[in-house]
Amino acid sequence: MNTQILEQMESEVRTYSRSFPTVFTKAQNAYLFTEDGKRYIDFLAGAGVLNYGHNHPVLKKALIDYISSDGIIHGLDMWTAAKRDFLEALDEVILKPRGLDYKVHFPGPTGTNAIEAAIRLARKISGRHNIVSFTNGFHGVTMGALATTGNAKFRDAAGLPAQGAQFVPFDGYMGEGIDTVAYLDKLLKDSSSGLDRPAAVLVETVQGEGGINPASIEWLQRLDALCREHKILLIIDDIQAGCGRTGKFFSFEHANIVPDMVCNSKSLSASGVPFAMVLMRPELDQWKPSQYNGTFRGHALAFVTGAAALRHFWSDDKFERDILRKGRIVEERFQKIAAKARENGFEAHEKGRGLMRGIDVRSGELADAITSRCFEQGLIIETSGHSGQVVKCLCPLTIRDEDLLEALDIIEENAAAVLK
Amino acid sequence: MNTQILEQMESEVRTYSRSFPTVFTKAQNAYLFTEDGKRYIDFLAGAGVLNYGHNHPVLKKALIDYISSDGIIHGLDMWTAAKRDFLEALDEVILKPRGLDYKVHFPGPTGTNAIEAAIRLARKISGRHNIVSFTNGFHGVTMGALATTGNAKFRDAAGLPAQGAQFVPFDGYMGEGIDTVAYLDKLLKDSSSGLDRPAAVLVETVQGEGGINPASIEWLQRLDALCREHKILLIIDDIQAGCGRTGKFFSFEHANIVPDMVCNSKSLSASGVPFAMVLMRPELDQWKPSQYNGTFRGHALAFVTGAAALRHFWSDDKFERDILRKGRIVEERFQKIAAKARENGFEAHEKGRGLMRGIDVRSGELADAITSRCFEQGLIIETSGHSGQVVKCLCPLTIRDEDLLEALDIIEENAAAVLK
Amino acid sequence: MNTQILEQMESEVRTYSRSFPTVFTKAQNAYLFTEDGKRYIDFLAGAGVLNYGHNHPVLKKALIDYISSDGIIHGLDMWTAAKRDFLEALDEVILKPRGLDYKVHFPGPTGTNAIEAAIRLARKISGRHNIVSFTNGFHGVTMGALATTGNAKFRDAAGLPAQGAQFVPFDGYMGEGIDTVAYLDKLLKDSSSGLDRPAAVLVETVQGEGGINPASIEWLQRLDALCREHKILLIIDDIQAGCGRTGKFFSFEHANIVPDMVCNSKSLSASGVPFAMVLMRPELDQWKPSQYNGTFRGHALAFVTGAAALRHFWSDDKFERDILRKGRIVEERFQKIAAKARENGFEAHEKGRGLMRGIDVRSGELADAITSRCFEQGLIIETSGHSGQVVKCLCPLTIRDEDLLEALDIIEENAAAVLK
Amino acid sequence: MNTQILEQMESEVRTYSRSFPTVFTKAQNAYLFTEDGKRYIDFLAGAGVLNYGHNHPVLKKALIDYISSDGIIHGLDMWTAAKRDFLEALDEVILKPRGLDYKVHFPGPTGTNAIEAAIRLARKISGRHNIVSFTNGFHGVTMGALATTGNAKFRDAAGLPAQGAQFVPFDGYMGEGIDTVAYLDKLLKDSSSGLDRPAAVLVETVQGEGGINPASIEWLQRLDALCREHKILLIIDDIQAGCGRTGKFFSFEHANIVPDMVCNSKSLSASGVPFAMVLMRPELDQWKPSQYNGTFRGHALAFVTGAAALRHFWSDDKFERDILRKGRIVEERFQKIAAKARENGFEAHEKGRGLMRGIDVRSGELADAITSRCFEQGLIIETSGHSGQVVKCLCPLTIRDEDLLEALDIIEENAAAVLK
Repeated sequence: MNTQILEQMESEVRTYSRSFPTVFTKAQNAYLFTEDGKRYIDFLAGAGVLNYGHNHPVLKKALIDYISSDGIIHGLDMWTAAKRDFLEALDEVILKPRGLDYKVHFPGPTGTNAIEAAIRLARKISGRHNIVSFTNGFHGVTMGALATTGNAKFRDAAGLPAQGAQFVPFDGYMGEGIDTVAYLDKLLKDSSSGLDRPAAVLVETVQGEGGINPASIEWLQRLDALCREHKILLIIDDIQAGCGRTGKFFSFEHANIVPDMVCNSKSLSASGVPFAMVLMRPELDQWKPSQYNGTFRGHALAFVTGAAALRHFWSDDKFERDILRKGRIVEERFQKIAAKARENGFEAHEKGRGLMRGIDVRSGELADAITSRCFEQGLIIETSGHSGQVVKCLCPLTIRDEDLLEALDIIEENAAAVLK
Repeated sequence: MNTQILEQMESEVRTYSRSFPTVFTKAQNAYLFTEDGKRYIDFLAGAGVLNYGHNHPVLKKALIDYISSDGIIHGLDMWTAAKRDFLEALDEVILKPRGLDYKVHFPGPTGTNAIEAAIRLARKISGRHNIVSFTNGFHGVTMGALATTGNAKFRDAAGLPAQGAQFVPFDGYMGEGIDTVAYLDKLLKDSSSGLDRPAAVLVETVQGEGGINPASIEWLQRLDALCREHKILLIIDDIQAGCGRTGKFFSFEHANIVPDMVCNSKSLSASGVPFAMVLMRPELDQWKPSQYNGTFRGHALAFVTGAAALRHFWSDDKFERDILRKGRIVEERFQKIAAKARENGFEAHEKGRGLMRGIDVRSGELADAITSRCFEQGLIIETSGHSGQVVKCLCPLTIRDEDLLEALDIIEENAAAVLK
Repeated sequence: MNTQILEQMESEVRTYSRSFPTVFTKAQNAYLFTEDGKRYIDFLAGAGVLNYGHNHPVLKKALIDYISSDGIIHGLDMWTAAKRDFLEALDEVILKPRGLDYKVHFPGPTGTNAIEAAIRLARKISGRHNIVSFTNGFHGVTMGALATTGNAKFRDAAGLPAQGAQFVPFDGYMGEGIDTVAYLDKLLKDSSSGLDRPAAVLVETVQGEGGINPASIEWLQRLDALCREHKILLIIDDIQAGCGRTGKFFSFEHANIVPDMVCNSKSLSASGVPFAMVLMRPELDQWKPSQYNGTFRGHALAFVTGAAALRHFWSDDKFERDILRKGRIVEERFQKIAAKARENGFEAHEKGRGLMRGIDVRSGELADAITSRCFEQGLIIETSGHSGQVVKCLCPLTIRDEDLLEALDIIEENAAAVLK
Repeated sequence: MNTQILEQMESEVRTYSRSFPTVFTKAQNAYLFTEDGKRYIDFLAGAGVLNYGHNHPVLKKALIDYISSDGIIHGLDMWTAAKRDFLEALDEVILKPRGLDYKVHFPGPTGTNAIEAAIRLARKISGRHNIVSFTNGFHGVTMGALATTGNAKFRDAAGLPAQGAQFVPFDGYMGEGIDTVAYLDKLLKDSSSGLDRPAAVLVETVQGEGGINPASIEWLQRLDALCREHKILLIIDDIQAGCGRTGKFFSFEHANIVPDMVCNSKSLSASGVPFAMVLMRPELDQWKPSQYNGTFRGHALAFVTGAAALRHFWSDDKFERDILRKGRIVEERFQKIAAKARENGFEAHEKGRGLMRGIDVRSGELADAITSRCFEQGLIIETSGHSGQVVKCLCPLTIRDEDLLEALDIIEENAAAVLK
């Protein structure tokens, strides 16, 4: 396997090729295949991009058909039949059945771009600059989004202070019994608290990069109520937790709330190609034409597979129920693994929602030891959290049960070997 | 043609569907086709994304073959055969023949992301925050890039000052005979000028959104020398002017300079899918692993068509020569149109380099009147410049001569009708 | 009493002339006299500037002697005998007896300027930009200091985000039993908390404008230890609480800690003229000559009275003991007033340290009603806190017992009348 | 002469005691006396603070009388008879005779504080953040003012980017024949210039720290007209050039313009004590009560001597005429010195207005050599300009002719010795 040019030419910034130093060539659903024919189960799924697996036949066909027919691949934000079809599918399959009335902004095709667009709109509408973000939140690394991202690794590399956001503690951050929404309320009501009256609150319902931290349903509901009370926009970053990852299309459906804006990306294109959107309550669409631009705002291949996926997976509740069922399988096994670790004197615990799950082993070194061993045994799996202390499951939602169980066996065996 | 859902659901921020209010379905090379069968010549080409035209057969085949073979579409920044092949093609076809030695960073797949990555690296290396940017420069709208972008439309909508850059006048901005590199030199040498010692100078060799303003070769060379003298990094934003647009693969080749970093995007994927890269001199690759991240950093469909295009178009100098030949055709016709307008009392003039050309008519209204009429006659063409005063040609570099001439006839006729 | 020109010509920004709409002409110790001969007891003392009372005979004599002798009043930061004498007094009377070894920076003559200088030095030394500040902290309103000041009134008027500081909860802010130093420790240890590793922690031991909130001795000690552990500079803003106000010359003496830097102003000149200094551990004096400047850095009248006051009041411990004795008188009376209010159903309580004391009545309106009535009865007294809910005592430390008791009687009577 | 404690205890940031390493004790008009009885002529005058000389008998008497009568020295911004008297004097002696209608804001007592207040008000009124400042401008070093100050020495030490201002070239900066007001006009009219539409233009009519650079009268008039045209506030920083320094009370009187706001400080107290004010057109007084505060906003000793000086010096035009007369003496002698230097092959030239004059010798080392020699011969004189290349005259306006001539002889002799 020739990796010389890869090692030579690619910047030292490269990440995943260090954890998985092999060359991949093909992929099907939950399998990744290397050049020398080795098969891996994919429990990373492009960090949540491949909720529908690699190269799903329905989406693959849609993609090939579209390209074969000389469909427009790129046309800036002109009107295309592909865009219209995506909007129709979104409206019919997702929004209407959930009673949601949103307008759609296609910014640049990445999550960070959706965040930049959403917070800019919130600032424009409110005339205020501040965005409330949460400890361990991750919302991207372009300069506007970076201000809302907690990771020092990115913030310190920025070369100037990332401006425009203030952090408050996420659900559970201050320990049991301390209500961090009440604390935010106190800061908002105290005109000398130092918290600038915010344009918006930006939150992940389940923090992904932050360590698979689910906010409790009640906390989300109180956060939503707080935003209404103080007339602050609530923006849900559903980039990683959306598109079914938690068992609902939108992760906030669990809490029965209707955010003012929603940012989606990652699995939105369904095929792996870059794609992002911002949903906003219609009265918030105060953009003037071309006030936020970008060359790749809504490209057609994403529309094609995005629409096909919405229709294929979300027209009834079968897919949802299947995600929740698999989620329970992972949950139980992760709880068992954590329990066994605790028996052996390790402070481990399971956490997550739907198929966004992790085992927190309180140590990046231990977590790395587990995932490295898993990789040797044919499982692609990564860690998250401020010190990489959480072994996380982000498998395709479409994974076959036998693959899921095989992967869980690998994790269990290696967790046991490390945490003994 | 049903446009209702498009008008209803898409944010008011939409732009091009206002200039071209019709639904497009198919495209081939320089043609765009609408749902009701109307054919347009495309003189916009995705704002420079489609240098190789729509759905080029070689690229289309590469794309379909790859997808059919279950190639990996998304794998974060893991090593894939597709990435390796792209790097090989880049090295063999582009870098080595030009004597260039660059390392490659794949940030998020958009131009603005490449800019954010490049300026962040420059800040990190230098320990300084300031980026020198130029009047009428455009480098993207995410918050970090926005600081270097001159347009008030975007800057005012940002809701907080875009920080970290200072503007100096571009070549020719202060009128004939005033050397703006000398002015920058004076500012740099004067410790009370208010110009913070910069980490980098960021410049387009031909300003695209700013109005198709080519910097003179001599100015670029002196700017390069100035950067060396003051030990400031020179970053070329070749997002719009690169990939052959000006007649060379890199626009800075005309000036025989070797920038410290180069940002590419737009036509880099060759097919229209999002893709971006930052090239940097090897000693500048001071990134630590994962210090700049993003979900879509290098996606495989872009690698596949990107590599195919490099090999197909750039293995010899035929393509270059053809671009320059067509460029001269456009230049002459645009000069003729401008001359005629001046005869009629309008202050028009031609400008540009290669196939990045414009007619400046000194009025956004006049320019709009011309492009609107062109659209009615089957030509997609847009304006640029601070008040949209420049009618611009960004046609596919692969456009057939008869289509090019037809388009130029349309422009000539309508310019004559408006500027009379 | 002619107030017409005052009302006409002075900006609407004027404050205290609204609470006390009369023209003052003379003052002695704790008395203020108006043009029409009315006598007021001064419980505001220039917001803590007049700790030694108005026109103390010793200081008045020093001032007149100096001016009569044609002493230099202003000489930038040249060496003067007056400056030398002040430094000698500071060293002999204050620093040496307390075992303190500090170098002295005279920035501009105001508190906000001392804060700007101290945080700039902390940034310069550490190479980090962030300053940790606390809820309800007040450190001045020039743009650098403003970033560390919590009050929305000033922050909102600034017209751009005040940058460079992050707020954490002050002692007691989150309620009993929640240790806010432990929370800060957690934020510092969590690399994804969003708290940028700070250059310094800036804190008042007793928050003045924030509502006379004393940090507990134990909290201050743990904050000091935390700063040592994390190698973060500890800056004490002793502008209001210093110069004896809490019963010790420096307010942090109560906690037996030695801050890295100390900011003094207000009563430092002793006479009421503007004056400020920054004390710093010698190894922190990394300023280069003239790297921080200002026209009024150390003016001689302040040196003269400042030195005289240090020698007169601080050469033994009589003054300290007297402050503490008077502090207990105020404390007991304020506790009694608060207790009575609680009997009447109001949520009042006493707080403070030394002669920096307040009664928190939980309502700006009630507090205003009390102070307005007091003014009518000859007592100048103000409120503080985020909603002006604290009636505060900042009387001269030199107040005669009979005047102190008279003032307390007035407060007691009017508090009783309002809180009934 | 004991300087040990001064060298030991004072921060390394100290400046003037390095140029003049001796201890001063007394001063009268233009004389400074050291502890060991040496007499110096003062051509620095506290960097323009002592326009009326040291210890002027009229002002000294006013000061001693006020203190002797137990006048209030500090009372925050309460109404005092002293403040009323100052406002009356300002109105009667200065504003009314000049047809000016201004309201008065007393911020903190320093120039930088006046600048912070003025630009904050401009931002508040306009809703825009940007302040246009000029190359080589100096407006103070607190963080808000620093953004408008060009000196790298201060900007680099700040530890974070000073935000909120953009620089344009001052009159003459780009060489003869280049109209920098026209350039600013172009930037303002070009919506892609990168110049954010400003709240205000902030300018010194004669740059002090920048090197005694007088803007031409015509340039100031066109700048004023440009501000009217674009509805941008014009703020004159008259901190150094005001109070008669250029031969008129306000330096902008020469240009017959009426700025929207004026910042004064330095010689405003007349005695050397800290004092500052912002004048603003009445309709701009949109401050809300207490929206900008500070402990030393308007202290009474400054009011007393400030009022006395206005009445003593400005009630008729004798003082003005005398300043202009002396200014011509300095001008002629400086021209002669410069001419002689040019004869010897040095590029020297005279510049300035009124008694704010300098000889630019194009080299900080040469200028230092001259001023050092002058000091040895009994003349206190300093340099200014980005590299300290200008030997400057900022003598008391009240200097006796014989002292002026003696000082000029010293300069001439030493300039000749150095520039030979």
